[in-house]
Amino acid sequence: MTVKTLAVRTDTLVVTWTDGTTTSFPTIWLRDNCPSGLHPDTHERLLDLLAIDERPVLTAAAIDGKTAVLSYTDGHTSQMPISLMNAHRPGRPNGDAGDIPAQLWRADHGAQNISRHASTPILTDDLALNIWMRDTAKFGLTIVDQLPNDTDSGVHIAKRIGFLRATNFGTTFEVINKPNPNNLAYTSVALPLHTDLPNQEVPPGYQFLHCLANEATGGGSLFADGFAMAEDLRDEDPEAFRLLCEVAIPFRFHDKTADIRVHRPVITLGAKGEVIEIRFNAHLAGIFDMAADIMPAYYRAYRTYMAKTQDSKYRLTLKLKGGEMVVFDNRRVLHGRDSFDPSTGFRHLHGCYVDRGEFFSRLRLLANTATAP
Amino acid sequence: MTVKTLAVRTDTLVVTWTDGTTTSFPTIWLRDNCPSGLHPDTHERLLDLLAIDERPVLTAAAIDGKTAVLSYTDGHTSQMPISLMNAHRPGRPNGDAGDIPAQLWRADHGAQNISRHASTPILTDDLALNIWMRDTAKFGLTIVDQLPNDTDSGVHIAKRIGFLRATNFGTTFEVINKPNPNNLAYTSVALPLHTDLPNQEVPPGYQFLHCLANEATGGGSLFADGFAMAEDLRDEDPEAFRLLCEVAIPFRFHDKTADIRVHRPVITLGAKGEVIEIRFNAHLAGIFDMAADIMPAYYRAYRTYMAKTQDSKYRLTLKLKGGEMVVFDNRRVLHGRDSFDPSTGFRHLHGCYVDRGEFFSRLRLLANTATAP
Repeated sequence: MTVKTLAVRTDTLVVTWTDGTTTSFPTIWLRDNCPSGLHPDTHERLLDLLAIDERPVLTAAAIDGKTAVLSYTDGHTSQMPISLMNAHRPGRPNGDAGDIPAQLWRADHGAQNISRHASTPILTDDLALNIWMRDTAKFGLTIVDQLPNDTDSGVHIAKRIGFLRATNFGTTFEVINKPNPNNLAYTSVALPLHTDLPNQEVPPGYQFLHCLANEATGGGSLFADGFAMAEDLRDEDPEAFRLLCEVAIPFRFHDKTADIRVHRPVITLGAKGEVIEIRFNAHLAGIFDMAADIMPAYYRAYRTYMAKTQDSKYRLTLKLKGGEMVVFDNRRVLHGRDSFDPSTGFRHLHGCYVDRGEFFSRLRLLANTATAP
Repeated sequence: MTVKTLAVRTDTLVVTWTDGTTTSFPTIWLRDNCPSGLHPDTHERLLDLLAIDERPVLTAAAIDGKTAVLSYTDGHTSQMPISLMNAHRPGRPNGDAGDIPAQLWRADHGAQNISRHASTPILTDDLALNIWMRDTAKFGLTIVDQLPNDTDSGVHIAKRIGFLRATNFGTTFEVINKPNPNNLAYTSVALPLHTDLPNQEVPPGYQFLHCLANEATGGGSLFADGFAMAEDLRDEDPEAFRLLCEVAIPFRFHDKTADIRVHRPVITLGAKGEVIEIRFNAHLAGIFDMAADIMPAYYRAYRTYMAKTQDSKYRLTLKLKGGEMVVFDNRRVLHGRDSFDPSTGFRHLHGCYVDRGEFFSRLRLLANTATAP
């Protein structure tokens, strides 16, 4: 996009683009983003914003090739790249390779249609990494397969994205039946669908569960798209949806070494009203403490969402095999498992997390080096 | 507190306490929190909330010592500890040792009055640890002194609280003048007051800056209480305060290995309207992208807060010495430094972070073992 005309107003530059659209740039924005104010090495802004007027006054504006040359009454001249102005028109989102819309799914998606990606290309090829990550961002759930039979091989995949998220359970964890468990995951009981660690200020982002053995009777895995359940609730029961967005409930994990608590809603919305996070974990929900007069209505709303987590309409079931790893957005996709009989065989999953920040950072870097599909 | 009378209503138990206050407990809450529904090892809730009625009907309620014995039409009987009911009256906050109100400060607090704590007791004595942490939570800024002259000694103090927060800069970082810096901290230029890494979904919580050497001319440290500046803004200019709370702005850090971005407001409020977080970093502020029609008003609000960060009314200045470590809430207290002349001497700070989640978890555990001041 190039510029057709520039018009100088008192405190605004009005750009008319060659496609006929116009954009108003306040002069304070133009001065704030003048390239002369950036550090040459770090690209951080060095300008002291208070050193310029609140409404800088333009005296002239002209096009010179790919640059707008802007002159101000205080003597400053800016060489503004037109590409920067076009990419950052006020009020418009600018392109972000990390901005991948969620594609919702329900049981009719079919467990056999969960996207599968072989481990070796992810380790060696940025394009394969990018394709797998974009799939994972879109659906919130993929399977990486053909993993070597050692506990580190899943972690190596995760670290292609970024460093691991540490929690009070460590940076990696073993999902096996343990004596004296501090978490129900470390037993053989069934785990209803849940998100991990909603008691954290930011629950872990992407979860990696690498199956090393799954020979016990039972122990199948369950997944459901928490965003799809939330969107259906929004359609079917707007009042319940509203309560789950607006009322913060306590979540808590505590053992001998940690007592980690937050109050947060079950459903978190983004700036455009879209669902961006689900916290649902019956085991780690604390003792509800909203006012008694809204408590019955809240329980009704909470149970309505909970009923969806138990509804086969939303559920994908699969039994992981050794060498397979499920990768899912823990802040979107609920996971669970059937109970298993530890006397019939060994079941061992090796788990870790990488947060959304690192995930989307990697996607942005890959967009600059690998051709996105 | 003990119970005077219990009154059974259709779907509510009304408790009259010996002090004359009354509390209504919806029966669904009473059933949801029946102690029989907890796992004996993990204390996690095992109850399937959907297996009980939406409005369980009480048939009888009686006191038996420290327990309320509640009988329901479906045959269930609960032994509810009265202490639990008292501690969790709906609509009332229950005691949380991590809930320490901020005590605001300005320049007149005086740098010499920043609370100082010797390193050795913190390492060896839970009570000293607790006192120091509560001071740090309250003021957002303390100094730990008498540290041995090795880079690990500050980290040992931090790890008394919890594990370190990893970022794209690693788990620890060296604030020294470096060639080819990817961050202005790693130069000798002045750093205006800022919070670290507002481009992260959750910026690092508590920051630890251990001074190993500070022999260069210049290089003094600056601190200001971001909450105090925000509260003053709320009083003086409510419209500016509102814009800083409501309009999310882009923050971004990018180099060759990371491109981490979020949109967030400068001021974040908690459930009671109290300021709980400040993000302010002129270097990492991205290119503003709000609609052009609110942009001039936003810039005015942003500059009004920025002017406070440059106002000596809010600023404490001190020159750290070897063996001292400043510890501050990076989501509340802004920090900065004067420029220094690297030709006149060595300046070396060793830094790390521990997040709020680990910090408040430790405070809760200490409250159970150490006597709080």
